[in-house]
Amino acid sequence: MAFLFERVAIVGVGLIGGSLSLAAKRAGLFSQVTGVGRGAANLAVARERGIADRTTHELADIGPVDLVVLGVPVNSMGPMAARLAPYLQAGTVVTDVASVKGPVVEAVEPLMPAGCPFVGAHPIAGAERSGAAAASADLFRGSRCVLTPTPKTDPSALARIEALWRGVGAEVQHMTPARHDQVLAWTSHLTHAIAYALAEVIASRDPDLFLFAGPSLRDATRVAASAPVLWRDILLANADPVADVMREFGAALDELREAIAARDERRLVAHLEAGYAARRKLEESKP
Amino acid sequence: MAFLFERVAIVGVGLIGGSLSLAAKRAGLFSQVTGVGRGAANLAVARERGIADRTTHELADIGPVDLVVLGVPVNSMGPMAARLAPYLQAGTVVTDVASVKGPVVEAVEPLMPAGCPFVGAHPIAGAERSGAAAASADLFRGSRCVLTPTPKTDPSALARIEALWRGVGAEVQHMTPARHDQVLAWTSHLTHAIAYALAEVIASRDPDLFLFAGPSLRDATRVAASAPVLWRDILLANADPVADVMREFGAALDELREAIAARDERRLVAHLEAGYAARRKLEESKP
Repeated sequence: MAFLFERVAIVGVGLIGGSLSLAAKRAGLFSQVTGVGRGAANLAVARERGIADRTTHELADIGPVDLVVLGVPVNSMGPMAARLAPYLQAGTVVTDVASVKGPVVEAVEPLMPAGCPFVGAHPIAGAERSGAAAASADLFRGSRCVLTPTPKTDPSALARIEALWRGVGAEVQHMTPARHDQVLAWTSHLTHAIAYALAEVIASRDPDLFLFAGPSLRDATRVAASAPVLWRDILLANADPVADVMREFGAALDELREAIAARDERRLVAHLEAGYAARRKLEESKP
Repeated sequence: MAFLFERVAIVGVGLIGGSLSLAAKRAGLFSQVTGVGRGAANLAVARERGIADRTTHELADIGPVDLVVLGVPVNSMGPMAARLAPYLQAGTVVTDVASVKGPVVEAVEPLMPAGCPFVGAHPIAGAERSGAAAASADLFRGSRCVLTPTPKTDPSALARIEALWRGVGAEVQHMTPARHDQVLAWTSHLTHAIAYALAEVIASRDPDLFLFAGPSLRDATRVAASAPVLWRDILLANADPVADVMREFGAALDELREAIAARDERRLVAHLEAGYAARRKLEESKP
C-alpha cells in the first residue's frame, strides 16, 4: 500500500509534531520524515526516537516533500511560512498544528505558492510537557482534531489531511477558523488562564498553602506547568474571545459566591446540580 | 503486637471511612470493625470487601469500642454525635474525617461524655467517587492529614489518632480548626467551586462545546462530579472563608483578563511566569 505522504518535513519537532510523526509512521502513513528545528539536542532526541529519519537546521535542506507540518509556536507560524515558501515545490501540502487558527490561517494561507495547498489543523491533545522527548505515538488516540478549511482550501488536500488525523486515531471535525477560536477559548484557553491565576494567587497569599493541596488543586493547576511564553502567545493571538469567556466565567463564579455568602441553600444547590449535570455531559462527550 | 485500636466503629462507611478501615486493618492497627450506616446495599459491600466485620443500622448496637470514626456528611456530624453520646463508654476515643473543622469541632466536642475524648481530623485525600465500593487501602499513601486539637483535646487521644494516620501513610499536621478552614478554602473548596461554575457556564452556553474538551478542561472540572448536596453543606459550613478566597481568586482572574484584553505582553507574561513558578512550588510540596 502506498504511503499517504511519502516524504514529510516536520518544522518544529515538539510534543505535537513529534507525536504525529511517531503515530503516522506506526500507522504506515509517513515514510521518510525530515525534522527541522533549531535545538541540536532536541533534534538528536528526534533521531534517536525514530521521530525523524534525518534532521536539519535549514528549511533550504528539506528538499522535495509531499507534506510540511508546521509545529512551531503560534506567533512563529506566519514568519516561518514566509521563510518556507521559497523552498516549496508544486504539489506539497502544508498544514499546521497551532491551537489558535484565525490569525494563523490568515497569515499562512496567502503566503503559499501556487500548487501548495494549506490546510489548518488543531489536534486537541497535549500535555504540559514539551519537546521530542515527550512525544508519544498514542497521543491522538481517542482525541479530536479540528480542521479549519476556508473558501480557498483545496478539497483534495483537505481530504488527505483528514485521512492523516483519522489514521492516527483522532475524530475529525471541520469549523471556520473564527468558530474554532471561540470554541477553544471555552474549552482550553480559559482553563489555562484559570490554572495560572489560581497557582499565582495561592502562592502570593502563602506558598505553604500548597502543603495542603489535595488532588483537586493539583488537577486544576496542572497546565500552569506549560511554558509561559507559549501561552502568552496563544492567549494574545485569541485575546478577544479569551477575554470574553473569562468575563463570563468570572460572572458565573461571582453568582456562586453570592449564593454562598448569602447562605442561600436553594440557589447554591441549583448551581451545583447544574455543574454536576454538565460534568456528566462532558464525560459522555468523549470521542 | 497490640492493635492501636482493638474494636472500632465506623459511622458512615463511605470513601474515607471505608478506606481508613481497609488501610488500618492492613497495617494491623484495627482488629474488629463495626460499620454503621443506613444503606443496606452499601453495608453489604463493606462486609464483602472486608471493610467491616459486622454492620448495623443502629448506634445502640455498636457495643463497647475503643474508637468511633464519624464519617458522615459535615452537617450530620453534630446530630450524629448527639445520638451517639448515650452509647459511648468511658475510654472510647471519638474522631471524625470532615473537610470543614470549625463548625464540626464546635458542635461535636461539647457533646462528648466525660472520658470520651474527641479529636478532629481531616485527611486531605479523596475522589469524586463515593461509598464503600470506592474505598481503597492506598488512599492515604503520600497524603496529608490535618488534626485540629483545641485546648480541651486530650493529649493521649491526640497522640493515638496521630499514630493512626501516620500508620496508614499520611503525614500529619496540627492546626486550629479556624486555620484549617481558611487553608482548605484555598486548597480544596475554591477548586470545587471553580469546577462546578466552569462546567455549568460552558453547558449553559452550548453543551456541544464539551465535544472539544481537551485534558485541561477534564481535569479542571473533574470534581464537579462530586455529590452536590455534600458540597452544598461543605461550602455553606465554611461560607465566609470560601466567599473570601473566591473573591480574591476572581480579582486575580480579572487582572489576568485585563492584561490579555489590553494586549499587554509584559504584564501578561509576568502573571504566567508567577503561575508557572507557583505550580512548581506546588509540585515540590508533595509529602
